[in-house]
Amino acid sequence: MASSAYKSYQTIERLHEAIGQEVTLNGWVYDTTGKGKLQFIKLRDGSGTVQCVVFKPNVAEEVFEAAKSLTQESSVRIVGTVRAEERAPSGVEVDVKEIKIWQIAKDYPITPKEHGDAFLMENRHLWLRSTRQHAIMRVRATIVKAIRDFFDGNGFTLMDSPILTPAACEGTSTLFETEYFDLGKAYLSQSGQLYGEASAMAQGKIYTFGPTFRAEKSKTRRHLTEFWMVEPEAAFFELADDMDLAEDFVEYIVQTVLKHRQQELATLGRDVTKLEKVRRPFHRMSYTEAVEWLNKNNVKLNRKQADGTEIQVDFPWGEDFGAPQEEALMQQFEKPCIVHRYPTEVKAFYMKRDPENPKVALAMDMLAPEGAGEIIGGSQREDDFDALKERILSHDLPLESFEWYLDLRRYGSVPHSGFGLGLERTVKWITGAEHIRETNPYPRMIYRIQP
Amino acid sequence: MASSAYKSYQTIERLHEAIGQEVTLNGWVYDTTGKGKLQFIKLRDGSGTVQCVVFKPNVAEEVFEAAKSLTQESSVRIVGTVRAEERAPSGVEVDVKEIKIWQIAKDYPITPKEHGDAFLMENRHLWLRSTRQHAIMRVRATIVKAIRDFFDGNGFTLMDSPILTPAACEGTSTLFETEYFDLGKAYLSQSGQLYGEASAMAQGKIYTFGPTFRAEKSKTRRHLTEFWMVEPEAAFFELADDMDLAEDFVEYIVQTVLKHRQQELATLGRDVTKLEKVRRPFHRMSYTEAVEWLNKNNVKLNRKQADGTEIQVDFPWGEDFGAPQEEALMQQFEKPCIVHRYPTEVKAFYMKRDPENPKVALAMDMLAPEGAGEIIGGSQREDDFDALKERILSHDLPLESFEWYLDLRRYGSVPHSGFGLGLERTVKWITGAEHIRETNPYPRMIYRIQP
Repeated sequence: MASSAYKSYQTIERLHEAIGQEVTLNGWVYDTTGKGKLQFIKLRDGSGTVQCVVFKPNVAEEVFEAAKSLTQESSVRIVGTVRAEERAPSGVEVDVKEIKIWQIAKDYPITPKEHGDAFLMENRHLWLRSTRQHAIMRVRATIVKAIRDFFDGNGFTLMDSPILTPAACEGTSTLFETEYFDLGKAYLSQSGQLYGEASAMAQGKIYTFGPTFRAEKSKTRRHLTEFWMVEPEAAFFELADDMDLAEDFVEYIVQTVLKHRQQELATLGRDVTKLEKVRRPFHRMSYTEAVEWLNKNNVKLNRKQADGTEIQVDFPWGEDFGAPQEEALMQQFEKPCIVHRYPTEVKAFYMKRDPENPKVALAMDMLAPEGAGEIIGGSQREDDFDALKERILSHDLPLESFEWYLDLRRYGSVPHSGFGLGLERTVKWITGAEHIRETNPYPRMIYRIQP
Repeated sequence: MASSAYKSYQTIERLHEAIGQEVTLNGWVYDTTGKGKLQFIKLRDGSGTVQCVVFKPNVAEEVFEAAKSLTQESSVRIVGTVRAEERAPSGVEVDVKEIKIWQIAKDYPITPKEHGDAFLMENRHLWLRSTRQHAIMRVRATIVKAIRDFFDGNGFTLMDSPILTPAACEGTSTLFETEYFDLGKAYLSQSGQLYGEASAMAQGKIYTFGPTFRAEKSKTRRHLTEFWMVEPEAAFFELADDMDLAEDFVEYIVQTVLKHRQQELATLGRDVTKLEKVRRPFHRMSYTEAVEWLNKNNVKLNRKQADGTEIQVDFPWGEDFGAPQEEALMQQFEKPCIVHRYPTEVKAFYMKRDPENPKVALAMDMLAPEGAGEIIGGSQREDDFDALKERILSHDLPLESFEWYLDLRRYGSVPHSGFGLGLERTVKWITGAEHIRETNPYPRMIYRIQP
């Protein structure tokens, strides 16, 4: 039978296939200019933008008048003929024959002039229509698809972890909570990892990919209260496998965006030569090597004294890196760097200790270049029942809440590893967006839940 | 450079490619039997299961003893040679040479005997390892991939809607709520649709796909409090386009599962001849035709009288269908049926009224056969500013919360449509699972938030 009517709808993105043909386009007016007998309408339909040319002698009087009446974001249907036009970014223009006005937009609030951040955020539902936000969202969608294709194509089964969870992994201070019927409080998940581990024991290799929540009072360019995280987990993977997987994965994401989103990256003014360098092998160093490098290169730590004054000290082994250390470390690199084997004290209870040096955990973080910071955190998990139980108790975590998690070490425990990649931070890095609020369609921050 | 080590790991799924070769497998013992000099180990590794044969004369004494010591869900590494074996479901067996025991599992709680529902749900993290749950989860992952591939391949851009939302679309009684810093209460989203509409005005065709939440006290085989929903939304789509899209979409999902998950469907005992019939065109009828059909076929409605007695009445035009009506209607069909143009009173405020009959909304539901019930609900949206504003007011909704949504009708309003498909209900239909709790890795119900 014939294909559905909607499939015959023409989109600007594919106009280059219709040169010489009459087409019907539906969209919104991005911009208009005119002089004398010519009116130019820059039309956007979500798939792309194209210049539509109205030449007075070629159209009925009311069509020319309609063209002159169009305002920014008015919605229209345009019938016209596609013509090759070398000077146009899309390579085509449309010679207009008819215009049907869906609606004339009055006083569209976002104009080509500069607007403040707060104003743009209040109008996020409209700001999304602008060229730059449109491009970022397309890159985001491509990154999501690359993430899923990578895991689906490498034998990982998607196993969604729940958002509503009964207990807090590591304290409740940064968790959103809600009443759950007669069962007491439930918390919005910060990570699907513990569930992912159970899933990996069933499916071998899995990934979980969904929104996660942090009720942290962080007001930085890198924090959202709601963000998407993908978390692969694989049975029988040791730390070395985990790092290899993370490298393959990030290379695949970046190279896929370069392949499919050249136009959007150009719109964003992104220096793609920097992204082209993101090829395996990435850099690697242990935490201990990183500390040595910092101290050798005189990257000091500011430390407050009892009297309130600050002094600069050598970076002490055992302390966690902050943004200043990570940035200093990464200035030497054009590719991501994996830092591995962190002190156990700065890492989570579930990470396995290095049998060769119990002071460090089999953990790894991937830092991205160009100041993008940490995009991946992962580890080999503790697979020994007694060691894990002792860790839960020494961290003052409620043992009864972790009985199911301990079951994974009771019944056929195996070495296993995984990591988490934050979607929005990855979008920020790849698009070069200045602030993380631009990387999510409707970002949530501590001072922002509208619209 | 050489590919990563983890890529060389062998999986049971691909053993048919390694006949005659020595392989190393890592996995869990599903079952063991033995007689005399033979021990049989049914090994699962998440990708599949295979029978491993230990023949005493061929192995060291300690390997045979190790084989005899294995219990259900013990974790092992097995080295052996792959041999073609016609009688095996996978077509291969492994002749064992070496066994390394990762862990002997003691008293694995889920045995081949029957267990009660509550017990299985408490042990969901282990129950997922069983053949049936494993198969359902694989089908679920394939359905998710089919959903995303369908939209990605048809020009729809993924635009995630937020989970944390400031206002309630249709009352707060069925919403989970949480404190949101200094901004008051936030609610967990029941639907991404309103955001999806804003996104469609930016990207043309979009879909949102994430978890949604209903704090409903429904204790049925069809209700979860947390479930995934995919919601496409397309500018310039009218109801007819929306119905065509829904047909194409559901056909694609079902046919993709049939193509890639034959083995899992066989494991589940699913009658695939029923799924093979899910081909366009589906059945369609208006709500009014459906009411006529019910009354012509004597499908009565039970109605309580003032005195408490029940009488059976003809189905009155204007009332919403319940499960009994939907089931009666669908008994005549082997394919899904779209019922369209419902009375405005039973449908949401944002649905557009039929210009040809303002008593009905341009709404549609897709009902699946075999008693699966409603899997899709959708509509053309009200695109007229005045009509939508009047509807918000007459539904006693807070106008200020909908100003941003009204903006979509202020600035370049266009006809647009969309629908929502519930993932878990679709998985239930396609897998033939008896209860919706089997369709989500960690299902959340009013009496269940563990593990």
